[in-house]
Amino acid sequence: MLTRFIQKSFILPTVIASSLAFPAMAALNQQSITNAEQLRETTLRAHLGYDIVESLTVEVGPRLAGTPADARAVAWAEAKFAELGFDKIYKQPVEVRHWERGHAHASVLSPYPQPLAITALGDSVATPQGGLKGELVFFDSVPELKKADPALVKGKIVYIDAKMHRHREGKEYSLAVAGRSIGSSVAAEKGAIGLIIRSVGTDQSRMPHTGNMNYKKGVEKIPAGAISTSDAMMLTAMKKRNKPIVVNMELGTQTYAPKVSYNVIGEITGSQYPDEYILIGAHLDSWDEGTGALDDGAGVGIVMAAAHAIKPLKPKRTIRVVLYANEEGGLVGAKEYRDANANELHKIKLAGESDFGARSIWRFDTQVHPDNLDLMAKITKVLKPLSINSGDNKARGGPDVSVLPAKGVPVFSLRQDGTDYFDYHHTANDTLDKINPEELRQNVAAWAVVAYLTAQSEEKLLPLPAKK
Amino acid sequence: MLTRFIQKSFILPTVIASSLAFPAMAALNQQSITNAEQLRETTLRAHLGYDIVESLTVEVGPRLAGTPADARAVAWAEAKFAELGFDKIYKQPVEVRHWERGHAHASVLSPYPQPLAITALGDSVATPQGGLKGELVFFDSVPELKKADPALVKGKIVYIDAKMHRHREGKEYSLAVAGRSIGSSVAAEKGAIGLIIRSVGTDQSRMPHTGNMNYKKGVEKIPAGAISTSDAMMLTAMKKRNKPIVVNMELGTQTYAPKVSYNVIGEITGSQYPDEYILIGAHLDSWDEGTGALDDGAGVGIVMAAAHAIKPLKPKRTIRVVLYANEEGGLVGAKEYRDANANELHKIKLAGESDFGARSIWRFDTQVHPDNLDLMAKITKVLKPLSINSGDNKARGGPDVSVLPAKGVPVFSLRQDGTDYFDYHHTANDTLDKINPEELRQNVAAWAVVAYLTAQSEEKLLPLPAKK
Repeated sequence: MLTRFIQKSFILPTVIASSLAFPAMAALNQQSITNAEQLRETTLRAHLGYDIVESLTVEVGPRLAGTPADARAVAWAEAKFAELGFDKIYKQPVEVRHWERGHAHASVLSPYPQPLAITALGDSVATPQGGLKGELVFFDSVPELKKADPALVKGKIVYIDAKMHRHREGKEYSLAVAGRSIGSSVAAEKGAIGLIIRSVGTDQSRMPHTGNMNYKKGVEKIPAGAISTSDAMMLTAMKKRNKPIVVNMELGTQTYAPKVSYNVIGEITGSQYPDEYILIGAHLDSWDEGTGALDDGAGVGIVMAAAHAIKPLKPKRTIRVVLYANEEGGLVGAKEYRDANANELHKIKLAGESDFGARSIWRFDTQVHPDNLDLMAKITKVLKPLSINSGDNKARGGPDVSVLPAKGVPVFSLRQDGTDYFDYHHTANDTLDKINPEELRQNVAAWAVVAYLTAQSEEKLLPLPAKK
Repeated sequence: MLTRFIQKSFILPTVIASSLAFPAMAALNQQSITNAEQLRETTLRAHLGYDIVESLTVEVGPRLAGTPADARAVAWAEAKFAELGFDKIYKQPVEVRHWERGHAHASVLSPYPQPLAITALGDSVATPQGGLKGELVFFDSVPELKKADPALVKGKIVYIDAKMHRHREGKEYSLAVAGRSIGSSVAAEKGAIGLIIRSVGTDQSRMPHTGNMNYKKGVEKIPAGAISTSDAMMLTAMKKRNKPIVVNMELGTQTYAPKVSYNVIGEITGSQYPDEYILIGAHLDSWDEGTGALDDGAGVGIVMAAAHAIKPLKPKRTIRVVLYANEEGGLVGAKEYRDANANELHKIKLAGESDFGARSIWRFDTQVHPDNLDLMAKITKVLKPLSINSGDNKARGGPDVSVLPAKGVPVFSLRQDGTDYFDYHHTANDTLDKINPEELRQNVAAWAVVAYLTAQSEEKLLPLPAKK
């Protein structure tokens, strides 16, 4: 069945017109443009991207950093690069935290006993066996908690009810996530014995959302969990009944000795400038409750399939696919990659990561040297038939590559529709069935176009100007 | 904010026209029609129905028959009837099974180890501690399993992958549910050691659906669980890889001595025929994983609120609200009600149960004596502004009242839109946030109209003719 993207790309006059506009321009020669247009059409019809995500989620499944499943994911990635005929395959060791979730139970003990759907936040310490019992004290946000009189908090379990609303760009995530990332230490500094947050998610469901947290040095580590948004709504209704709410929360987390995991890298060697790299990345690790299909199996499928599709075109620059280790633990593989390659980063001419699910891309953002903006505009024209518009030059490039612009490396973002991304993000519900194969193909096509055309550029890809 | 139902009901010419059509008709006098129309409008604006569901789900929550929470639900129901000023409140003891779920874990051991989201089927025996390990043997349906060579099944765990598609009337439920209700015994008769089914649901999610099962007498009881539809899709993809799939499933179910629960009954005493009853029911018990908001907290809220709204109108016949015990265990309270009241059933002039979620009603079906069909047609006219159409005379009346027509008791069904009912049915996701208050109010209005007008009927409500 033809898809809406394929149908749009068949509006031939547009395609021809945009092709005809290019020959006089220096940055990209006509053959590269034509190749990119064909690449776009063939990738729009290819199911390799989806097959890769299926393979990863079915044959490996959840792959929390440091676990045996993470090691299986690394082996899977090496084997998959080999199967796809990448020219160079190697891996870079990364020391990662090894934390496991174990069981998680919570319930209201009084005034109205009933269970709560809870999950531990990543890195949370365990509760005592049998659980941690305490009265809830309610806050709407971390700033509100910060203002609170410690006498109100001491000896209690802090509950943070920060809501997150649906948005294509996932705009409220960075606000709502504060409770998850720093809430426990803010609460502990005021004498709280535990933290429960409303899940950082846009769903109305019984699936709690996990995610990373950070204990502040020198502050007591208290157990921290997230209840589902449905449970949060129930607690709000219970609170209206004006009786103290006492809960029990039991988290059976365990922290083991750190392990070695790997950034796994596959390259399509450049035919003309093999030492200049177009880096396209995704992260290989995932949270443990879902199968990491959206976060970030989709990204893995997209960038591997895009590079594979480019190979027969013998790109001038090298296409480097980096599958990062332990993004979820706090960009651990990304920082290792940056530091271990500190002297080689200038060879990375452009970098981007796909890590926002599997919905269609709607905008192409960059953070490049101003002299390269014309080139980016030309690439945008080839993306147009995919319903992708030009964006701004303030891209961060995706979580793992966001550490590179400070080193002068230009980045790009092919921005996906995130309207429902935070319905599934970091939940058991992050599974393959949430991926629409048609939208995934549009992603592969866009990544292939951007990686190929920047690899072909006749003009130099410049490092970012130093920040004033 | 005005709702779509309220807006429709404001099309005054229609209302006036239908009112004017009635005076000459014998079955219902004009005052009753006018009262019913006002009742419809006031209930469309009242939030009592929703408040009742909130109260039940927040203050009691899950209430599996036989558990302490079930006893709390009974106490809640008595108190709520009293608070609402019902004239007569009483309860009828019902012996119920006391089964508890305990923990449930499953995972694929080979070829691709990963966890599966599973729940035990209601009444399943436990597995050995540490779980039951076995190779899966796949079937699409119970009929296919019935045809299978026992040699293929012996010593294995049967997996039944019956799919259920979305439909307003929930049409495929009765087909898909066979695996859940009788699958374990069919499998055990062929030598299987366990049963796993694809959840009987229309969602694509990681929420397994529980539900009742029945062990056949004389057949070995094997443990039985349901995996989520997302896991089922994953297993299908894993099966394509053509390697034996070995799983472990651990179900920590426990069966205790039977307990006494109660059908809880509240009445608005009839002003003219107190010994003639219009029975409107719902079931008070729920599965244990959600809070039983849709199944059947909504029904409880609808029928209690409808009766409460009728009270000031002093209905001629008695409105009897029956909150049945242990519907989920197999209409246990309903059968007890039927048998304990065997000599009084002729006094029930009409019965209906609300037990299909909280979406809008779209059709009014009956199973009444043909001589009463004109009366029903007149009632349908008062339902029209609620976007409810006339239906057929083949209603079963809802699960708990479906045992009554065989005893001559006429029944009705106010049929709700079930398009998404089986997304949440019997899952942890059956929670209050799934209820749209506006749609719930439309339900209350419809139940109030039907109960009130049948209570007011000038013509006799006849028992069903004996079946030939």
